[in-house]
Amino acid sequence: MTLVPEAILLLQSELGKLPGIGPRSAERLALHLVQSESDVVRRLAESMVAARARVQSCGICGALTEKTPCPVCAAPTRESALLCVVERAVDILSLEKAGNFKGRYHVLGGRLSPLNGVEPEDLRIAELERRVPAEGVREIILALATDVEGDATSHYLARRLAPSGVRVTRIAHGLPAGSGLEFADELTLNRALEGRREL
Amino acid sequence: MTLVPEAILLLQSELGKLPGIGPRSAERLALHLVQSESDVVRRLAESMVAARARVQSCGICGALTEKTPCPVCAAPTRESALLCVVERAVDILSLEKAGNFKGRYHVLGGRLSPLNGVEPEDLRIAELERRVPAEGVREIILALATDVEGDATSHYLARRLAPSGVRVTRIAHGLPAGSGLEFADELTLNRALEGRREL
Repeated sequence: MTLVPEAILLLQSELGKLPGIGPRSAERLALHLVQSESDVVRRLAESMVAARARVQSCGICGALTEKTPCPVCAAPTRESALLCVVERAVDILSLEKAGNFKGRYHVLGGRLSPLNGVEPEDLRIAELERRVPAEGVREIILALATDVEGDATSHYLARRLAPSGVRVTRIAHGLPAGSGLEFADELTLNRALEGRREL
Repeated sequence: MTLVPEAILLLQSELGKLPGIGPRSAERLALHLVQSESDVVRRLAESMVAARARVQSCGICGALTEKTPCPVCAAPTRESALLCVVERAVDILSLEKAGNFKGRYHVLGGRLSPLNGVEPEDLRIAELERRVPAEGVREIILALATDVEGDATSHYLARRLAPSGVRVTRIAHGLPAGSGLEFADELTLNRALEGRREL
């Protein structure tokens, strides 16, 4: 005898596919939803489908947007000479929240990972190369992750962009703001030492 | 300039209403969903609406079920003389997972809480009283929470059910299985002492 209604089990398995939702959370959410007002559940379901349908990738930079070009690409106030390369569209949101970057973005769509079959042609590198002369880009800031694949991708991009004469930089690695030495791992400390600057 | 598309913000606020989903989780889930395959999102949305539509309360015990009476109430193998009273329909699932109880259930729908305006007539107590003679119930096991309101509700039920002559018991309180004394709070320890049994 299966005591849990099948519809709940189905919902549970769909919820369990979401990031950060384990089997226990999926169960709790499923049980909460079947005991909620029908209207509340319908509104949630509709906002999901609507968001997925309305949100697309910006045709220029690849950011999440409801219309293309996205607000950043469309803004005349943003410097077109400065291009920040990020792995994923959501990384743009983090940088925009920080609020200091006044250039434009380019979403790479991942990082090189030959072991997982991610080759240069799987990333938006050709698009990036085309933007350099088309938009008069003078500096490309690489803002990729600080792991082995992020490093490899950064070095590959620097080499590949060299012929275009554009300046290629990488965001700094070091101690996070507000953190002391005792919380930093060895790699971070070594990078912080390497990246030291004159006062 | 709002950089995050409005559809994402809307979805985020709907997701943030779910239990255990804070603002950060809601943001991550919303961003994940708008970047998922449309089919995946539609399947999740549909399974939510379907689960809410198909799952109802059992007309007898109040359990979550796709048809009334629920499998437990309908099973001829379950003892009708033994009735376990729980606060919420989901509590039944916990007891069924434990797997040892062979009687039937009755969902109270909450516990007495005069401060929050929950009076006896807001709970399924009259239904419980009717079931005692109708189903030949001989023992009612109260499996309510172990806080002040759970205690008060248990005592109220015991007094109210006394005239019917049914035996009213309460599940034991004590140390959880696998736990040592050092992890138990004082109330648990005192209850464990009070509830001691001869070996």
